Parts: sequence; structure tokens; C-alpha cells
Amino acid sequence: MESMTGIKPVRVGLIGLGTVGSGVVKILQEHHDDFLRDQGVDIQLIAVASTDPAQAEALGVKEIFSTDGFKVIANPDVDIVIELVGGTGIALKFIQAALDANKRVVTANKAVMATSGHELLAVAGSKGLELAFEASVGGGIPIIGALRNSLIGNRIESVMGIVNGTTNYMLMRILDGLSYDDALKEAQELGYAEADPTADVEGHDAAAKNAILTTLAFNTEVVLEQVYTEGITKITPTDLAIASQLGYVVKLLAIANRTPEGIQMRTHPAMISKSHALANVNGVMNAIFVVGDAVGETMFYGAGAGSGPAASAVVGDLIEVAQRLTYGNLRPYIRFGTEQLPLVAIEDIATRYYLRLTVPDRVGIVAATAAAFADHGVSISRMQQADTAFGTEVAELIYMTHPAREGDLQAVLAQIKNASLLVSEPVIIRVED
Amino acid sequence: MESMTGIKPVRVGLIGLGTVGSGVVKILQEHHDDFLRDQGVDIQLIAVASTDPAQAEALGVKEIFSTDGFKVIANPDVDIVIELVGGTGIALKFIQAALDANKRVVTANKAVMATSGHELLAVAGSKGLELAFEASVGGGIPIIGALRNSLIGNRIESVMGIVNGTTNYMLMRILDGLSYDDALKEAQELGYAEADPTADVEGHDAAAKNAILTTLAFNTEVVLEQVYTEGITKITPTDLAIASQLGYVVKLLAIANRTPEGIQMRTHPAMISKSHALANVNGVMNAIFVVGDAVGETMFYGAGAGSGPAASAVVGDLIEVAQRLTYGNLRPYIRFGTEQLPLVAIEDIATRYYLRLTVPDRVGIVAATAAAFADHGVSISRMQQADTAFGTEVAELIYMTHPAREGDLQAVLAQIKNASLLVSEPVIIRVED
Repeated sequence: MESMTGIKPVRVGLIGLGTVGSGVVKILQEHHDDFLRDQGVDIQLIAVASTDPAQAEALGVKEIFSTDGFKVIANPDVDIVIELVGGTGIALKFIQAALDANKRVVTANKAVMATSGHELLAVAGSKGLELAFEASVGGGIPIIGALRNSLIGNRIESVMGIVNGTTNYMLMRILDGLSYDDALKEAQELGYAEADPTADVEGHDAAAKNAILTTLAFNTEVVLEQVYTEGITKITPTDLAIASQLGYVVKLLAIANRTPEGIQMRTHPAMISKSHALANVNGVMNAIFVVGDAVGETMFYGAGAGSGPAASAVVGDLIEVAQRLTYGNLRPYIRFGTEQLPLVAIEDIATRYYLRLTVPDRVGIVAATAAAFADHGVSISRMQQADTAFGTEVAELIYMTHPAREGDLQAVLAQIKNASLLVSEPVIIRVED
Repeated sequence: MESMTGIKPVRVGLIGLGTVGSGVVKILQEHHDDFLRDQGVDIQLIAVASTDPAQAEALGVKEIFSTDGFKVIANPDVDIVIELVGGTGIALKFIQAALDANKRVVTANKAVMATSGHELLAVAGSKGLELAFEASVGGGIPIIGALRNSLIGNRIESVMGIVNGTTNYMLMRILDGLSYDDALKEAQELGYAEADPTADVEGHDAAAKNAILTTLAFNTEVVLEQVYTEGITKITPTDLAIASQLGYVVKLLAIANRTPEGIQMRTHPAMISKSHALANVNGVMNAIFVVGDAVGETMFYGAGAGSGPAASAVVGDLIEVAQRLTYGNLRPYIRFGTEQLPLVAIEDIATRYYLRLTVPDRVGIVAATAAAFADHGVSISRMQQADTAFGTEVAELIYMTHPAREGDLQAVLAQIKNASLLVSEPVIIRVED
């Protein structure tokens, strides 16, 4: 073992003492000597900021506490700023200010990375600074590191991930028979879902992670607004039961594919075979399935959220940046969407589809709906009429299609709606084979 | 994008043009410009060596070919030596010679890393050189990088891996009903098993990877000889069918646990619950399940062998080393077993056990065997007599125990053997709950 003498301290400022920030403080307190001995870095937490002094008190960091994040950044002794505030408001300003002040930055902020990551990394790169963001996708799962480093010998063909634990938990419980509302309520009671669950259940959280994964996997410049996004709010126990009978499970997936026409990028519920590696990822766990031309199929699995997992990723980043500061001026990582590959419009993406149509129970209704598929060239692979109670005035028609363009499928649905053949909104789930 | 001008070439010599070496050459040929543009490294393959000139001819590298690996190392223009010969003979000499000549080294050699990795990394570290070995475990799965970098904020609690694809394939086929011999023959026909399958089926290959994983996960100095190792040669379809009835699958596992008494390190077939993340890793795929105090449960999945996957890992390492050469003198990685934690002897490790005893079919035989368990304090959780054909003179007794010390279990078996209660060797499979 080499001597400790002469290792220059790396001084860290931390903004945000919530769940993840508290986890980071605890790791730095417990493992300082391990990191010094094993990783050769002397990490000193010298400034923290949050809105709540009680958090700092509880963590024993009251002496270095401030309620002003900009004070942490302005502290001339701070080498690295950790941003754990979240959101695109003040958090973005903190990151910009830190880079302006020539500080290295570590963040867990998926929203900022999915909307402004490209610009921020360009600024960081031009100044020779690191901006590290492993914790922005998949909690403690080292997927960012894998795409940035270990897998760089590959041309990545596709990325498919379960990157939102809340909805993954809810889908598991809906499959158990709970209604969507009951599954949501349970997730909220367990602390998995926020009081306002919109970001999770509408797919926005998964879409932000999708934008980051797509940017890294294909080095193409995309932002959150470009991700086609559907949530899980229309999913019912009926759909999941039928999917199960057909050999599928339904997962909210972040999908990015390389095709000859360009990059496909979409976030929506999808049926995958029960034998797919992602099918057994249950509860709040996350997993990202990556296919590269050399490595073939790989999967990365772990807890996608929570104090420990996210803190693990933040500290992993922090040590890497600290080692660069301590031992050399390695070129900072800048390959975050430095190219612009064409994006395939959602209308032009072809998948198989599951559709559940609730229709009036009358003679000729099956023929009328089936004709709409034929009119737009969408081939049906399977059709069944779900059991309905005697005397019910509606029927449920389940269609599975062969691969069809989204645009054609939408035309089918428009025709069916225009002919007043539906008594409620159709349920549409794509099938990823 | 920054200018390409002035990027100093990194010159690489490659020894070994077999499956993996060919894959590496192809990636370097196809992706040179990508690596220059995206990773900022100008990688030039300037020397290759192997025993077979035809390989070099086929890859279009005849002009830089030699049959003498030491010539590649002695080439003063070579900055990085890639060793893909394998084994602990000449390959070890190549690595030592390369470090002696102040070359950085990338290797896929599990045998060398499991036996001499500690010494080699100490030499490399003292000279400020890198010795990278991602491809030594899990093919293209970036498990080494995860343990070295992304997960360093964690105190690793356990590592459990399916790290040998050949035996994983065979166990799948034995579960399908094939005999051990037929499963082996099929694996050989498919190219998954060597003509001499000893290293795979006796667990030596998995044990070498276990030594490397244990060293990294706990930073403790261990070598291959210290890994308790059992292979799969005694496993029958009967055992796998019974395991399945009980809710388990049998996998050859590399296990390393941190316990208050020290590190447990063992490689053997084990029953794991069908609901465990590793249970669905089938065929020749590999997966490594890691538990850390912060990150919780994580798993890394992918192809554990083959040209593409291993080449992916080698090139990932190569680019990282090349970036360090090009952009700075970062401290090389040296934390490979720099400490000596106590190892728990196999006799002192407690697990649950499955035992299948083939005994004479006579009155009192169950009581006699059961008494042996009682005599050594091993508690039985379940016992059943397997169906045997009428008129057969032997019976099969299946015991499942509560957690018991290996030493006590061996004493039970010794007593049963000494009393001549067995008509053939017992089958013992540990249960990992």
C-alpha cells in the first residue's frame, strides 16, 4: 500500500439534504478512511445547503450548513458540487452556476439531464470540467457507466428498460387483481408514489430517463420533449389477465432502437414474453436491457430509487471525479449527444398491437370493427370476444395484430370511432417480440 | 466536437489471434474512426502475434504479424500489450515481460488473474502502469468495472454468480431429462464444451472467476487454490426434478459472502429459489448478483463467453487505458487484494443441504440414516423416500436439512458410510435461501 502522505484533499459541497443527500452524507462520513486508503482520495465535505436546517442537524453537519445553495457554489474552497435538489428550476441554475465557477459537478437530476444535458456537458467539456450523472437513471444500477465506458467497443442496437419502480409496482398489483386506483393508493401508502403521481403514472419520469439513455447509447442529441410517451393510467386487471393468458406480461418500457431509418424512441406500456429477461423484474426494481453488436444481450438490474441506491451512484461518480482531480487532468467526458441522428416519427414505427375495444353488443359489430383493420391494411393475428355477463349491452373485443405502422393503426381506430362503434376509450398496448 | 488535430496515436500490440483476439481486431478495424471522434483516442494496432499465420492472413494483419509474442512486447513503439493467449504458462510470462518493459496491459486471462493477479497489479501499480482485466470474468458483462468503479461507495456484502456458461447449459439440459453424459456430449457438439471438459464441469473455471470477484468485492488477497470447489459431475435428472418440485433450480454458483467470522468463498452446485433473479439465467448466459450496503441487490447479466462479448470487454478496457495514456497520468488501479481478511474454512460454513442417499431397501434403513443426522446435531427439515420400481433392492432417501455446519454434515455422511448404509456415492447440493 502506498503512503497516505501528500494526498491533496478534495473538497466537496452538497446541495440538497433530502433522501439521497442524506444517504450521500452518511456514506462520506462512514467511508472516508476507506476511500482514502483504497481509492487514494481524501474527500472532505466542507459545505452543505438545504431548505431545512433540521436535516443538517440530524446528520451532524450543522457547522457547514447554509440555506443558500449558491453560497456552497461560491465557496472558493469547494472543488466539486453535488446537486441533489432535483427538478429543472433552481437545480438547473445551481449546475450552471457551479460550472460557471469552474467546479466539477455530480448530479442525480434526470430532468435537467434530459432537457439541458447536452448544453451543460458542452459547457463542462469546454472548461475541462466533469459533469457526472450516474444516479439520474436506474438509481444504483451502473448503467450510465456501462454505456459510457465498458460497452464503448459496441455499436448499441437497442436499449429497453424498466426505469420507473412506482409503475412497475402498480402493474404487478393490477395483475394481482387490484384496480388502477387501488394499486395507486397502495403505492402511495407504501411511499412508492407521490401525492401527485402524474410524473410516474403518465410516463414522464420514464421518458426523461429514456432521453438520457438514448442520448448515451447512440450519441445522438435528443431531449425529453421528443420522447413519445404514454403512461399506465388506462391499464386494467382485464388487460393484464388477457396478456398473461397469451404468455405476456405488461411493463412500462423505455425503448430506444437503432433502425436503418433512424432512432426509435418511445415510452409506453408494452407486452413482453414471460420468458424475456425483463419479465421477471418485479415490484419497485428497475432493469435495463442493452443489445450491442459485440456484447450481444446484457441486462443491468437493481433498485431504481431510494436513499441507498441513488447515494451509491452519486458516491461512485464523486470518487471518479475526485480521482481525476487528485491524479490527473484526464479529458472530461463530453460524448453526450454530440451527433444528430434522424428520429423515426411514432406514426412510422411498426409493432404488434393488443387492442381492447368496448363495443355495443349487437349483430354485425365484429364485422364492422374487423373491416376497419382491413381498410387500412392492418393484419389481425388473433381476435377474441371476452366473456360478458348475460344481459350486458356491451361486448369486449380483443384484437392482436401482426406488425403494423402506428399511423395505420391510428387510422383504424379513427374509423372505428367515427362510425360510433365504441362505447368507451380503447385500450392499446404494444407488443415487443 | 473538438478538433482531431494533435491527438497522439496509441500503439497497440496484440498477442493471441484466437476467438477473442479475432473479435478485437475486427472491432479495432471497424471502429477506429468512431473511437477517434467519440472517445478521443487514436488506436493503432501495430503488431500482432499468434502461432498460426493463417489467422493473421484472414484478418488482414499479415504485415504486422509475428509468431513470437515477445517480439510484440519488445517493439519499442508498442504502448499497450493485449494478452489473449490464456492459461498460466507463456501467457503469464508475456504479461510479466510487458510490465517489465513498461507497457500497459489488457488481458482476458482469468487463470493468471486468479493466481498471480495480486503480484502483477502490485508491479503495475509500482510502475504507474495499468493492468486491465474486465474480460476475465463474465465475458462482456461489465462486472469488474462495476466493482472497481460504480459500486465503490458500497461495502459489498455478497457476490453470487453464474459464471460458467457450459455448465449452466448442461444443467438446463439435465433438467430437461438428459443424462449428465448426454448433456455433456450435446454441449461439446454445440461448441460450448471443450473436448476435455474438466475445467468447466469440475468447477475450476468458475472457481478462478470466484477468486477474482472475491478479491475485488472485498479487496482481500485470495488465490484460486483457496476457493472451495465442487463441479456438477454427480448431478442427475432425478436431483433436478426433485429440486424443481421443491421450488428450486440448481445452478453452479460462485459464492462470496462477508460474515462476521470472515469471507466465505465457495464454488459448487446450489439450489436457489425459482423466484431468485439468478434462477431464470439459462443456457450459456452468465449473471452476477451483487449485494452492497447502499445499492442493495443488483444483477449484471449477459453472455459470459464468445468472440463478441469478450472482445467488447477487452476493447472497453483498451479505450480506458488509451484515454489515460492520451490525456493524463491518472493513478493506475491497484486495489486488487491489498488487504488480508480472514477466510472461513468450508467446514465452518453453514447452509441448508439437499442429500440424496441410495440405500439398501430394508427395514430400519430410514431410522439408521436419520439417527446419524441426530448424532451430529444436524436438523432435518424434510425427508422423503423417492419412488423405486417394485422389486428394486435399493431405495432413494431425500433429506433436506435446516442450516448445518459443513463439518457436521460431513460427519453425518461419514457415519452413514462407515455403517455401510450406502450403495453408491451420496449426492449433496447446498441450498442458498
